[in-house]
Amino acid sequence: MDSLGIGIIGGGYMGKAHAVAMAAVGAVFNTRLRPRLEMVAASSDASAERYRAAFGFARATGDWRTLVADPAIDAVIIAAPQATHRAIAEAAAAAGKHILCEKPLAGTLADAEAMGAAAHAAGIVHMTGFNYSRTPATQQARRMIADGRLGDLTYLRIEHTEDFLADPDAPPDNWRINGRQNGTMYDLAAHPINAALALGGPIDALIADIATVHPTRPGPDGPVTVSNDDQAQFMCRFASGARGHVLASRTATGRKMGYAYDIYGTKGAVRFDQEDQNALWYYDMTDPPEICGFRKILTGPAHPDYLQFCQGPGHGTGYQDQIIIEARDFLEAIADGAARWPSFDDGIAVARITDAAFQSHESGAWVSV
Amino acid sequence: MDSLGIGIIGGGYMGKAHAVAMAAVGAVFNTRLRPRLEMVAASSDASAERYRAAFGFARATGDWRTLVADPAIDAVIIAAPQATHRAIAEAAAAAGKHILCEKPLAGTLADAEAMGAAAHAAGIVHMTGFNYSRTPATQQARRMIADGRLGDLTYLRIEHTEDFLADPDAPPDNWRINGRQNGTMYDLAAHPINAALALGGPIDALIADIATVHPTRPGPDGPVTVSNDDQAQFMCRFASGARGHVLASRTATGRKMGYAYDIYGTKGAVRFDQEDQNALWYYDMTDPPEICGFRKILTGPAHPDYLQFCQGPGHGTGYQDQIIIEARDFLEAIADGAARWPSFDDGIAVARITDAAFQSHESGAWVSV
Amino acid sequence: MDSLGIGIIGGGYMGKAHAVAMAAVGAVFNTRLRPRLEMVAASSDASAERYRAAFGFARATGDWRTLVADPAIDAVIIAAPQATHRAIAEAAAAAGKHILCEKPLAGTLADAEAMGAAAHAAGIVHMTGFNYSRTPATQQARRMIADGRLGDLTYLRIEHTEDFLADPDAPPDNWRINGRQNGTMYDLAAHPINAALALGGPIDALIADIATVHPTRPGPDGPVTVSNDDQAQFMCRFASGARGHVLASRTATGRKMGYAYDIYGTKGAVRFDQEDQNALWYYDMTDPPEICGFRKILTGPAHPDYLQFCQGPGHGTGYQDQIIIEARDFLEAIADGAARWPSFDDGIAVARITDAAFQSHESGAWVSV
Amino acid sequence: MDSLGIGIIGGGYMGKAHAVAMAAVGAVFNTRLRPRLEMVAASSDASAERYRAAFGFARATGDWRTLVADPAIDAVIIAAPQATHRAIAEAAAAAGKHILCEKPLAGTLADAEAMGAAAHAAGIVHMTGFNYSRTPATQQARRMIADGRLGDLTYLRIEHTEDFLADPDAPPDNWRINGRQNGTMYDLAAHPINAALALGGPIDALIADIATVHPTRPGPDGPVTVSNDDQAQFMCRFASGARGHVLASRTATGRKMGYAYDIYGTKGAVRFDQEDQNALWYYDMTDPPEICGFRKILTGPAHPDYLQFCQGPGHGTGYQDQIIIEARDFLEAIADGAARWPSFDDGIAVARITDAAFQSHESGAWVSV
Repeated sequence: MDSLGIGIIGGGYMGKAHAVAMAAVGAVFNTRLRPRLEMVAASSDASAERYRAAFGFARATGDWRTLVADPAIDAVIIAAPQATHRAIAEAAAAAGKHILCEKPLAGTLADAEAMGAAAHAAGIVHMTGFNYSRTPATQQARRMIADGRLGDLTYLRIEHTEDFLADPDAPPDNWRINGRQNGTMYDLAAHPINAALALGGPIDALIADIATVHPTRPGPDGPVTVSNDDQAQFMCRFASGARGHVLASRTATGRKMGYAYDIYGTKGAVRFDQEDQNALWYYDMTDPPEICGFRKILTGPAHPDYLQFCQGPGHGTGYQDQIIIEARDFLEAIADGAARWPSFDDGIAVARITDAAFQSHESGAWVSV
Repeated sequence: MDSLGIGIIGGGYMGKAHAVAMAAVGAVFNTRLRPRLEMVAASSDASAERYRAAFGFARATGDWRTLVADPAIDAVIIAAPQATHRAIAEAAAAAGKHILCEKPLAGTLADAEAMGAAAHAAGIVHMTGFNYSRTPATQQARRMIADGRLGDLTYLRIEHTEDFLADPDAPPDNWRINGRQNGTMYDLAAHPINAALALGGPIDALIADIATVHPTRPGPDGPVTVSNDDQAQFMCRFASGARGHVLASRTATGRKMGYAYDIYGTKGAVRFDQEDQNALWYYDMTDPPEICGFRKILTGPAHPDYLQFCQGPGHGTGYQDQIIIEARDFLEAIADGAARWPSFDDGIAVARITDAAFQSHESGAWVSV
Repeated sequence: MDSLGIGIIGGGYMGKAHAVAMAAVGAVFNTRLRPRLEMVAASSDASAERYRAAFGFARATGDWRTLVADPAIDAVIIAAPQATHRAIAEAAAAAGKHILCEKPLAGTLADAEAMGAAAHAAGIVHMTGFNYSRTPATQQARRMIADGRLGDLTYLRIEHTEDFLADPDAPPDNWRINGRQNGTMYDLAAHPINAALALGGPIDALIADIATVHPTRPGPDGPVTVSNDDQAQFMCRFASGARGHVLASRTATGRKMGYAYDIYGTKGAVRFDQEDQNALWYYDMTDPPEICGFRKILTGPAHPDYLQFCQGPGHGTGYQDQIIIEARDFLEAIADGAARWPSFDDGIAVARITDAAFQSHESGAWVSV
Repeated sequence: MDSLGIGIIGGGYMGKAHAVAMAAVGAVFNTRLRPRLEMVAASSDASAERYRAAFGFARATGDWRTLVADPAIDAVIIAAPQATHRAIAEAAAAAGKHILCEKPLAGTLADAEAMGAAAHAAGIVHMTGFNYSRTPATQQARRMIADGRLGDLTYLRIEHTEDFLADPDAPPDNWRINGRQNGTMYDLAAHPINAALALGGPIDALIADIATVHPTRPGPDGPVTVSNDDQAQFMCRFASGARGHVLASRTATGRKMGYAYDIYGTKGAVRFDQEDQNALWYYDMTDPPEICGFRKILTGPAHPDYLQFCQGPGHGTGYQDQIIIEARDFLEAIADGAARWPSFDDGIAVARITDAAFQSHESGAWVSV
């Protein structure tokens, strides 16, 4: 069994999730390659050392360039602010390291495209961290659509609604309310856009409306100005002819993890809400009418990836498990020497839609993608 | 106790619902005025006679003009095709009859406006049959919004999704697939548009996308052409600044009565789905976080109108009950001599939005209302 | 079309529900016999007159004997206290009137048996008012079990939980807390026992535990003693070999209409909760495992009785509708001249189980039925 | 940071879950002691070696005595068949190793008591693996009850229903259908009994009914006899005066992880179902009636233990996470040198109830505990 040196850049929210995933993934999936938690990088030596001790890395650094250049590092996980993704990815690719980069892939479409070019040029394995598509339920939905169980899709409604900025009287973290890349269309909508593309196929055209609900919010020394969006939506037309609607919001009071979709086809439908991530609702139009209804399919041993976590039916996966599934795919892709979905290319496809949404919002008109 | 002669025009789907409502409403609500099932009109003498016998009317006629002119008729309920609404309403108003007219109020905005003018000129009581807004749950939602429990609204998502034409292989009723007034934007969307206006206030602007999913469907002698829409949606901006999305579909596989909404405000939220019409979900942002969650409020004695049907908590109302509530409001409005919500004016307001949606779809651009 | 003179004894809770049902049932179901609201009896002339005016009866009386003896009365509905059921039923049967009697059929098993004997001797149509078994959902469950969709039943869990006396600090209605017949085992459990027998077949043996949660409660002049039970349960063995559990409670905080069951069989299962009375949950063990789950069947046109209320799918029935279905069955039974389920015999069967439960509670041992 | 040598006996279902938990727990909770996966024992050298490689242990052995005696092992996790628990625990305690033992604690009450005596004599840290009580939701329920939010408890209904032997035509694993300790009362009911004691306090008396639904099942060479129970239930009386019902079943068709409870008190209620493990339903009787309802509390940052897995609201925990929480408690207890709930004493308390249930079933009478 070979081991793989892992370096993680960023020790916050997602950095920790990836560290835990790399600690657990070998035992969970009996992977061919076993990760070693080699080094963590953060914005200072002190914080990096704190992450090292907490997460169990061997070494720490306050400079991501040190991590990228280290010969013991085989693969880099980028969990740092979006503005830094491109520089890190280009350096890592140049050094021949495999890369798993958090979503959104980059702060601009141009940056995302540059990252894709660098990764392809270097021939490394590259992935974008759309972890919500990794739940056994959403994987099952994807399979059912691919297998034709829903027939031709006619409508997709996909949302990612949360309420972390719903309270206008609560002072926000400063970084959240500044920078287009931290707003709902750029940051939150990346998940439902990825789902839209994965489940509905390419999008031909869209029209968007992007809104800052609260132009000012309370700050430590009086009101501060909000420079990005609180809720964003677009209607779209898929290449298949299906229609859709995508909504992202950070002011959806009461919604904690409203990554949710309703997908209708000519033969069936699926509905899902990440707040109950182990249930996929499926309607089969061919059931006899007196016993026809949405089935609450609980993910279980019949669904790939599930068994490794739960072993018995009904046990259920959680958020951290989808990161572990992602880790497994990254390791297996490296073992195979071939990129897996979702790669940087998929991250670029999402960025292209996001970009079109901003264009549409500014022009007030439909935009072809 | 005075009685009131009721004439119903149309004996189908809605005509029957109104007949049952008028038979029951006196006993349910102990109304001041008691309805007499005086006459039913249908498209022929024979069918009218059949409805008379089935529903318990005293007399029947194959000509609605006979009904409208009859001196024993005090109030007319219009449950005939939309194209006939204007002529009937103008004649009934001219004869001084009170009118409860099914939604959508008319086949065109111009017709709706003419009906409103006629009703106002005659000084009669007039109502539009937006019965879904009459459930105790939706009445409670309306009250909570009016009382400020949700704070300032930020987003409203409202849909009316059904699947009666979801199967592309099933031959449809011919009338359903022809005529703009029978399509989803005109017919089904009338309910969520009424809800949008009632719950969210005036709409300033919208952009719509209207689609015919299946341009042809099987007919008795080969494929027939579909001339109206299967699914329709718009994004909108309310005068309050809130944003919204309205969806109507007859191809939403698995959805039977998807009159549903999510409404978010700065202090709380409500969610509702007519498929479980006795539950209103309410989130109060001020609950302590460890015990905070959407409350499943079951309609009960604390909610006006409920008690008359159910008397005990948890009993639950059904579809027919909302028609009986509507009948009560109509009778009480007549007893008071004053129109109640939703009047023809509200029907016109919905028609105005519908009209704007078609304009927007045709131009591909935002339309101010 | 023939008419039928209806007399209702009792104008409270259930008297009103039956009056509304008789006013509406003809129009709803196009019944062969059409009811006339002929007379209402109550405990005084004044209250009877009040009911007459409110519900639309022709005449009123303060003495039920007058009603029972009236030649214009063809059928009597007994909605008076249980202690009076036997005397009324014997008199009505002797006078040749058909009888629909509210549950529980009588205040004691002996009284119930006497009522059955009187009804059979007179050859009248007799019914017991187990209205919860009349919802389209529960009718569908019954049909599915009869058709073998669940295979051999293995376990039935049935409850009827409410919370109308959950608050120990709220002064109760005096009648509710006195008299075995007003306690949970006698009054509330009648519904789940009827369901147990209807869905699971005969019960061979049971062991019961009956409890008064609050032996005293606040009264107008200080604490008052509670002489009946707040919650009652039994475990049972069905003749089929299946096992079961029945629970009734009036102190089940938060439960408003917890008439609910889980029924497991060797091929499938059904689950139901009256708080969402239009949903029947069905699990079919033969579905492929990756798409297998409880189906939320919404009652609709495919389910008998539904169509008359709702006409379209997803509309939904409410509490009053199940009383109207009961009224239809009573009228149709009279038209046919033959009793229908649930007759007095079924009311007696429930009383026999209730009686055994009290015996078991007193002895602390299993009792054979 | 000190490390702790972990030995796991058993590499199946639960052995793997504990191995993953020990691999991840340090990074998740930043524990004071960091586990080393030192050795795994299984029934043969070959299978132990297979587990070692898959889970990432340093060494493997086919003899648990080797593991228990190894000086590098500080703590032992027993995930082997119940019949072996006592011998292993006594040896491990004698060697001064801390012990986390899977539930049920032992194959008989006498064995469980002997294990408790050995653990107390050795002064080691001891725990029983009732992992379902570790979800953030059930921890929150326990806290709410302790804090008096539900007032005095009046009724507890607790079940653990699954369907892994629901199909009478599927050949079962041989071990599952033999041995009292593998039946539902002994094995499955351990979870709800632990919940009953943890949430409702001590049980005074109970009466049980235990059933083998299918006395024979298909085997490889014709029917084989089933010697243990398929479903088991008891009614009970708590020392507090509350009443209860406990159900365990492996033939509850459609139920995958029906670890579920309804708990009613004089001020509130909670409901829970492990199939949606991140939702705790709470009813607060003091809410105003028009906005009162069961709140669907999603576990989140306000609930201890949650944050380490999910960091954001709504992310959700899964089955593996509850094992990691258990691992954390075990490690922290060792760091503190003091046992934590649930210890062997709690495992013995469950065994005492189980034992009483079998006695009651055999005598057909109430048994005092």
